[in-house]
Amino acid sequence: MAIEHAAPGQVIDVQPLAGKLSEARTAALFKTDALEVMRLIVPAHKTVPSHQVIGEVTVQCLEGEVDFTADGQTQRLKAGQLLWLEGGVAHGLTAVQDASLLVTITLRK
Amino acid sequence: MAIEHAAPGQVIDVQPLAGKLSEARTAALFKTDALEVMRLIVPAHKTVPSHQVIGEVTVQCLEGEVDFTADGQTQRLKAGQLLWLEGGVAHGLTAVQDASLLVTITLRK
Repeated sequence: MAIEHAAPGQVIDVQPLAGKLSEARTAALFKTDALEVMRLIVPAHKTVPSHQVIGEVTVQCLEGEVDFTADGQTQRLKAGQLLWLEGGVAHGLTAVQDASLLVTITLRK
Repeated sequence: MAIEHAAPGQVIDVQPLAGKLSEARTAALFKTDALEVMRLIVPAHKTVPSHQVIGEVTVQCLEGEVDFTADGQTQRLKAGQLLWLEGGVAHGLTAVQDASLLVTITLRK
């Protein structure tokens, strides 16, 4: 079932999915001309290949752990940790454990 | 002591502060031309008066509970819940319990 984008002011749950994480799928939460927010689901050992976007990005680990690589440097990102990147910086990740991440992307026309 | 802004790629802890929440203060995490992220600390019963910003905003409750008002409508926002607003929408909040919130603001020149 496709998940509808959240309307402005609509409360969105981003609690850890815990036992439901293994069945969850990546979902766009909302998108405007300037901002896109998604919940990324990454099963253990899966990789999101290196890529880049034009604007700034924040990546917040909601649960699990990932090895996050940006600009050739890899570091562990655990539940409750956040990092941000300038636009145009190549980044990717590999899940160490089943993980979900809140990803916020600044869009520019 | 002033808190330095986080550099790109620097891991920032946004776990619940729990026992340290009552001594914590609002902190800017980073700011660019396009995006500003802060951790807002609001003690129980304190109010952030209604205000507005030009760009889109996301508000994520990291811990505690707040009554969040946007466009005249109030709803409870609890730990692990997020909402977003279009730019220009008046919003404010009152903490029901000691709370910390991750606030992301899209900036436009």
